Amino acid sequence: MKIEQTIAGLRAARRALPGTVGLVPTMGALHDGHLSLVRLAKAHCDHVVATIFVNPTQFAANEDFGKYPRTLEADSALLEAEGVELLFAPDAAEMYPPSASPAATTQVLVGPVGDRLDGVSRPGHFIGVATVVAKLFHIVAPDKAFFGQKDAAQLAVLRQMVRDLNFNLELVVGPIVREPDGLAMSSRNRYLSPKERRQALVLSRALEAAQGAYEIGSRQADGLIGIARTSLATEAGVRVDYVELVEADTLLPAATARPGTLLAIAAWVGTTRLIDNWLI
Amino acid sequence: MKIEQTIAGLRAARRALPGTVGLVPTMGALHDGHLSLVRLAKAHCDHVVATIFVNPTQFAANEDFGKYPRTLEADSALLEAEGVELLFAPDAAEMYPPSASPAATTQVLVGPVGDRLDGVSRPGHFIGVATVVAKLFHIVAPDKAFFGQKDAAQLAVLRQMVRDLNFNLELVVGPIVREPDGLAMSSRNRYLSPKERRQALVLSRALEAAQGAYEIGSRQADGLIGIARTSLATEAGVRVDYVELVEADTLLPAATARPGTLLAIAAWVGTTRLIDNWLI
Repeated sequence: MKIEQTIAGLRAARRALPGTVGLVPTMGALHDGHLSLVRLAKAHCDHVVATIFVNPTQFAANEDFGKYPRTLEADSALLEAEGVELLFAPDAAEMYPPSASPAATTQVLVGPVGDRLDGVSRPGHFIGVATVVAKLFHIVAPDKAFFGQKDAAQLAVLRQMVRDLNFNLELVVGPIVREPDGLAMSSRNRYLSPKERRQALVLSRALEAAQGAYEIGSRQADGLIGIARTSLATEAGVRVDYVELVEADTLLPAATARPGTLLAIAAWVGTTRLIDNWLI
Repeated sequence: MKIEQTIAGLRAARRALPGTVGLVPTMGALHDGHLSLVRLAKAHCDHVVATIFVNPTQFAANEDFGKYPRTLEADSALLEAEGVELLFAPDAAEMYPPSASPAATTQVLVGPVGDRLDGVSRPGHFIGVATVVAKLFHIVAPDKAFFGQKDAAQLAVLRQMVRDLNFNLELVVGPIVREPDGLAMSSRNRYLSPKERRQALVLSRALEAAQGAYEIGSRQADGLIGIARTSLATEAGVRVDYVELVEADTLLPAATARPGTLLAIAAWVGTTRLIDNWLI
């Protein structure tokens, strides 16, 4: 596996790849969710390019940019073992070079979908995400790009960006990958203490409770959200950020559950913010 | 010359072009300024793709979108005569399809350069420009794109967008093309009555007056702007929008003139807004 840290180096290496290229953009701290996307990309494309970049512009000042886990060596070994041929791992100055005019900046705004769910709790987050993903698309020029269903709001934002700006590529979505006990895999799970790790299980339990109700006929948003909230309330250490039933494409509230609606949860477990969702 | 009205058709035709592709994006109503860009593109690239699209999102509600000249047949003949191989002429529904969520829209914001000069007089104008040009770049996938120096503020915006978002293409700039009497060519010149056509000459005369002063040693912004304004004031039918001396890349005010600064004028001649500039 070739590791490139510069845009010029990545482009030269990418041009040398014949056939189709699948892109798996990550912030590193890889887990099996990421690796499942690599496997999906390998099944779809001739070559897989992964990127590792902890993008500062998608973190607010009070968030965990500084402490976000950086494990490049371990990540590289995992990617190489999965057959990734090219890894792009730039530093911040390569992606956001200081210019003659330091305030100069181009932003990709995806509205109104970018102002929903995590876009409410994390103002500006999806501007940072859309902008860095547009940059990565231009740098890597993939035929397909692979994202996980766990970041459901991010998916809605990126789908709309690709459609509105006519990016010539296909987004492919991989399912949520869970630990054996149900916890959705996340790089942020490593922030959790053993006690918090147990408390965090309440997110997937809340989704399962709502799913159980749906399966015996419950369809009203209020009822399903109430069931999830009641479940979440059983863990005193867990503070709900949002529980919403929304249309998966627009993220607008859905009055009733049906295929294509998304029950999405964000909650704080101690000082760690986790998300999880169930796409009906 | 092949004319494509759909994105899918354009992409199929573009894929069939071997070698390098130069893009000349226009709003039609072509004049020799546009054709000079086609010639420049032919000199730089194996193939030239032109686009004609009067982009609604870069016009404010009170502007001339409705009456903007649409002369597709004459334009096609001119482009074909210049050796353009592929013309993309979509309608608004192809570029901005009505979606399930009508308000859904992705915008490219280039700041702060997009809020200077015409960005002040025409709020939102450069968001519309940057967004549609990003779309055209994704649709046509050119190696180089050709723009005229007359739209100097637009150039600064697009240069920054290409740099910030890592578009993998080169912007190439063609010089201002003028009528024999000095008027900068513009599709909007055809709005002018014979009397206004004579009055409009004051824009280039004002730039020449400032240039004359520069050549004998005048360097202060205030002095050069004053000379241009005095010249513009000689035509009672002409109302100044702005006269500014700015850095060509950031569009920030320059205190003194030197190579790389731009003296830019926008003025109303009757109901027609014209722009012109002198890049030192």
